[in-house]
Amino acid sequence: MVNTVGIFGGGQLGRMLAQAALPLGLQCTFYEAGSDCPSAALGRVIDNTQPEALQAFIHSADVFSLEFENTPLADADALTQHKTLYPPRQALAIAQHRLSEKALFDQLAIPVAPYSAVHSLNDLQRAVQEQGLPLVVKTATGGYDGKGQFAIRETAQIEQAWHELGQAGPLIAESFVRFSREVSIIAVRGQDGEVRTWPLAENHHHQGILSHSIVPAPQSQDLQPIATDYITRLLNHLNYVGVLTLELFVTEQGLLANEMAPRVHNSGHWSIEGAVCSQFENHMRAVAGLPLGSTELVKPTVMVNIIGQHPNTADILALDGAHLHLYGKTERTGRKLGHITLMPTDSSQLSHLCQQLAGLLPQPLALTPDMAIPLADNA
Amino acid sequence: MVNTVGIFGGGQLGRMLAQAALPLGLQCTFYEAGSDCPSAALGRVIDNTQPEALQAFIHSADVFSLEFENTPLADADALTQHKTLYPPRQALAIAQHRLSEKALFDQLAIPVAPYSAVHSLNDLQRAVQEQGLPLVVKTATGGYDGKGQFAIRETAQIEQAWHELGQAGPLIAESFVRFSREVSIIAVRGQDGEVRTWPLAENHHHQGILSHSIVPAPQSQDLQPIATDYITRLLNHLNYVGVLTLELFVTEQGLLANEMAPRVHNSGHWSIEGAVCSQFENHMRAVAGLPLGSTELVKPTVMVNIIGQHPNTADILALDGAHLHLYGKTERTGRKLGHITLMPTDSSQLSHLCQQLAGLLPQPLALTPDMAIPLADNA
Repeated sequence: MVNTVGIFGGGQLGRMLAQAALPLGLQCTFYEAGSDCPSAALGRVIDNTQPEALQAFIHSADVFSLEFENTPLADADALTQHKTLYPPRQALAIAQHRLSEKALFDQLAIPVAPYSAVHSLNDLQRAVQEQGLPLVVKTATGGYDGKGQFAIRETAQIEQAWHELGQAGPLIAESFVRFSREVSIIAVRGQDGEVRTWPLAENHHHQGILSHSIVPAPQSQDLQPIATDYITRLLNHLNYVGVLTLELFVTEQGLLANEMAPRVHNSGHWSIEGAVCSQFENHMRAVAGLPLGSTELVKPTVMVNIIGQHPNTADILALDGAHLHLYGKTERTGRKLGHITLMPTDSSQLSHLCQQLAGLLPQPLALTPDMAIPLADNA
Repeated sequence: MVNTVGIFGGGQLGRMLAQAALPLGLQCTFYEAGSDCPSAALGRVIDNTQPEALQAFIHSADVFSLEFENTPLADADALTQHKTLYPPRQALAIAQHRLSEKALFDQLAIPVAPYSAVHSLNDLQRAVQEQGLPLVVKTATGGYDGKGQFAIRETAQIEQAWHELGQAGPLIAESFVRFSREVSIIAVRGQDGEVRTWPLAENHHHQGILSHSIVPAPQSQDLQPIATDYITRLLNHLNYVGVLTLELFVTEQGLLANEMAPRVHNSGHWSIEGAVCSQFENHMRAVAGLPLGSTELVKPTVMVNIIGQHPNTADILALDGAHLHLYGKTERTGRKLGHITLMPTDSSQLSHLCQQLAGLLPQPLALTPDMAIPLADNA
């Protein structure tokens, strides 16, 4: 029987995993740099900057998972010689390598935007010829928030792009995709192979960071079964256990997979209040070998991130029905400090709440009622 | 600004208070015997068996509350010389003294069953003459689970009752009440005097311990405003801050107050999932001086206690839609180890879930669909 789950990482995802785990009788330990992290309020943190830390972590728990998708594969390998890691190491390896990820999407017939693998300047020139411009070049591993990327808009930039990124290992050249919106599907797979999916979230970004998600994504009835099919192929192929997220673009050619995250995801935070069983609880149930909980919607939900600066707590809690989740982090530009969940009962309440909330948050919030939940349809 | 709330007691109520507090950015400390208590997973426990413990506790937090209603008044007095305690010390004192409690109910015109104060054998004989038999005699302070009580069924027992209990300070002689059911109302009052109440719970006991609660209590539309009126009188009179519970009997003469608990209550555990804002979160909001959250029902709910022995976790989680809350306690006869929340979507699902659950729990569970939530009316 599982009593303790060891988690690579100790951020807010670990914190919310541990919060969901506690009432099920499960403890967590965390593997994180330093001991002052959001997860520290809920379990023992093993400081991964100290000698012998990995061995101590391996001994600290019965079964293991992760909240940090850049968990070093070498650590996962050392762990899996002794203990079980969910999701499987292979899912982590693929999610960390953009070319492997696209190859898997291709293999499972999950549509993606045109792309090429680039190992040389010659490859890059051919990619431009075949795919046309503009084109975005990314390193296959590492890189986030615009780092390790180069957007080629004219032929003259090809050599510069190669010069800047060519030393960083293999590259991927992706065509720009004209999409109307980004959605994500989150699913959980149990140790017995059962798969459950939550309703699609529609995601809105500000400066490359998730600003807010609307669930269920408006006008997504036709998209839901397609996204469910795609993520189920991934889960079954990988013999996955736990929560997996798949980000998708809605285009005129249908849904195109963007990337997957082998973990609970910011676009699923709404599920704490908005679903019968949250992504956090279901991930822990799966990892601990327990039956999965219902992923049914309780109510249509809007989840808004708190980024960079804390709003006044009392102002947020004065919004009727608002749920506040702070992560215990200090302020820093672009940092996710918490989130707010709104579950309006009708579109006039939503409109009112959105106007109020926009005035309380430090970051701009393009949350207008016309992009709102089709409340009448889904309530 | 409040960062830390100190709580007298460290049981499951403290654990659930701290769980609700964390996402609001609030830490908790606990004052409890030993350090191995249900609240220990969520905050620092100050062992009240150690010297200087009370001073350390007083220094550990910005504002104070309680989850243990037998918190010694001397401790509350020492605390309130330096810091603020919510609920106020007077509410605690009254709840610990059955005669003061009845006197307050009388003062506020909240109906109670006939009773007398008993300070002598003579008083007791007069009580029997005036109220008739049977009569239950209780010590005014202390006593629970049938201890400190004597049921007088015939005149010959009067002297024996006095002999057994007369040394324990003042007594109260209460007439037996013929009631159809017990209900409880839970309300929260903010520092600004705002009062919010949750829907009435109908409570069922087994061997004197709460077995399960049904919310909203069936056929309670007419009772809700009366109970709300009674608890609001108490809250305002006491200048109360935080959550208060009032237990009531439903009789042919209407609602009769039984007793109050100056704290979050077992019959309010359903509110974690069943209300927009739970009793735990609203108590912490009130204590921290934050705006109150909505007490609206999300869905009709059945809350079932786990008593004495743990069921198999996987069996419980296999019940679709069931929420499990374990308290991290070891098994002991009559001990509350956790609870399960069911939120059936219709009465056929309720009937099915109840049958399954009854087969999984060690204690008998008289949870039959015919005492069920009027789902069609409330869903």
